[in-house]
Amino acid sequence: MMIIGEKINGTRSQVARAISQRDRNFIVDLAESQVAGGVDFLDVNAGTSPDREAEDLLWLVRIVQEAVDVPLCLDSPNPQPLSSALKEVKKTPMINSISGESARLKYVLPLVAEYGCPVIALALDDSGIPKGTEDRLEVVRRVLHQTRAKGVLDEKVYIDPLVLTLGTDSKSGKTAMETMQRIRSEFPEAHLIVGLSNISFGLPARHLINRIFLTLAMMAGLDSAILDPTDQALRATILTTELVLGQDRFCRNFTQSYRSGLIVTK
Amino acid sequence: MMIIGEKINGTRSQVARAISQRDRNFIVDLAESQVAGGVDFLDVNAGTSPDREAEDLLWLVRIVQEAVDVPLCLDSPNPQPLSSALKEVKKTPMINSISGESARLKYVLPLVAEYGCPVIALALDDSGIPKGTEDRLEVVRRVLHQTRAKGVLDEKVYIDPLVLTLGTDSKSGKTAMETMQRIRSEFPEAHLIVGLSNISFGLPARHLINRIFLTLAMMAGLDSAILDPTDQALRATILTTELVLGQDRFCRNFTQSYRSGLIVTK
Repeated sequence: MMIIGEKINGTRSQVARAISQRDRNFIVDLAESQVAGGVDFLDVNAGTSPDREAEDLLWLVRIVQEAVDVPLCLDSPNPQPLSSALKEVKKTPMINSISGESARLKYVLPLVAEYGCPVIALALDDSGIPKGTEDRLEVVRRVLHQTRAKGVLDEKVYIDPLVLTLGTDSKSGKTAMETMQRIRSEFPEAHLIVGLSNISFGLPARHLINRIFLTLAMMAGLDSAILDPTDQALRATILTTELVLGQDRFCRNFTQSYRSGLIVTK
Repeated sequence: MMIIGEKINGTRSQVARAISQRDRNFIVDLAESQVAGGVDFLDVNAGTSPDREAEDLLWLVRIVQEAVDVPLCLDSPNPQPLSSALKEVKKTPMINSISGESARLKYVLPLVAEYGCPVIALALDDSGIPKGTEDRLEVVRRVLHQTRAKGVLDEKVYIDPLVLTLGTDSKSGKTAMETMQRIRSEFPEAHLIVGLSNISFGLPARHLINRIFLTLAMMAGLDSAILDPTDQALRATILTTELVLGQDRFCRNFTQSYRSGLIVTK
């Protein structure tokens, strides 16, 4: 399971405040605590203010990579902030994201190809998020057609089937799972990713719902996620799901993690 | 999800002691606490002593059905204890179990047919538990051939794919899941059942492993289980898994259970 830390996200009010006040310590704490929890990439999102995003993202990139060593996941739909951040990063970042939207294919995909970045590809297009599995697959096919045409290998593409909250559509988990199973079988070299917490928006006991969805999604082929790596119960869920799915030879990782105190059951 | 309470089981030392000392209160407590947790059937197993099993099972049946109202699941491989218990029960019980073993097909299956009982069918035969999915399916096919021949409807049959501990075979969860998916597609009217705790025997953090296995098994088609109904985190797992799998319309059951304090996240 590849993990992208979600917490440095300027659409969250505390992070937005820290960015606008240039509160370096707040951001560095978020970076360090996520790295301590265990991440492959750290997402950095500077918020949605068009006149400040490029500068804010650059600031985030600089202070985060001064503090920690992991590669970043540059989180913006806009080519200009991405372009200047790409010139600043020390390690090849992931780009979050392209989609079937024509502007992203036209302006963001060339950056992905030029810098050889892994990239998140959302199953939506200019008409929005398709409701059903079949229509989402159609979008994914069109996006992969474009990435391949630009020479981006499928193994660099992290497809996000798009997870909507169960609160407004009680079939949304089922739809996401079916979409993942179909993508996994049609594009076996591509990865599957979700933004985990979307599934439970507006519902109570969100952490529990997120954990159960993650377990089920891993059975449907999910191999990466954007999540809170400091959530120990979630980390225990991942280790245990890998164990039960037969991905943990001789149960070694699970039992060692248990001995290290990493398996919390709450 | 149909739930069978597992706790009145004479192979557990405390229960064995209560049976041999005719400790009515101990057994009644186990019955009442499980019914309070929520069960469809209560398993009653009198242990494995051949000279006392029939009499002990009869005692269990009598005191349990004096105390609570739910139907029983008569848990014995032996026709004689089953036969006398069947004459004693007030409500049609489940029988646990038949299998591909010739003695059970010859002596237990006729009781199932005669009394019109739902029955658990284990995917094993005289040679033991087959290692792989394909061989287990072959056993299941032979058992279903026999139940059908006796006029037992598939919808009365609860097939147990047999779950071995991950501790000795790290692929055992995967094998169980694959076997369930195959049975579900080949015998859509039959039910799938597991004895939940077997998956984690000998491993640490058993409750967590059991919960994750249950979630994954439900995605593979599991619709009933023998488990500890007093384990609140496990009950919360079932409700949440039903929610995420799209089996809880308008999230009503989940949100009502949350308000009633039934969703514990530990």
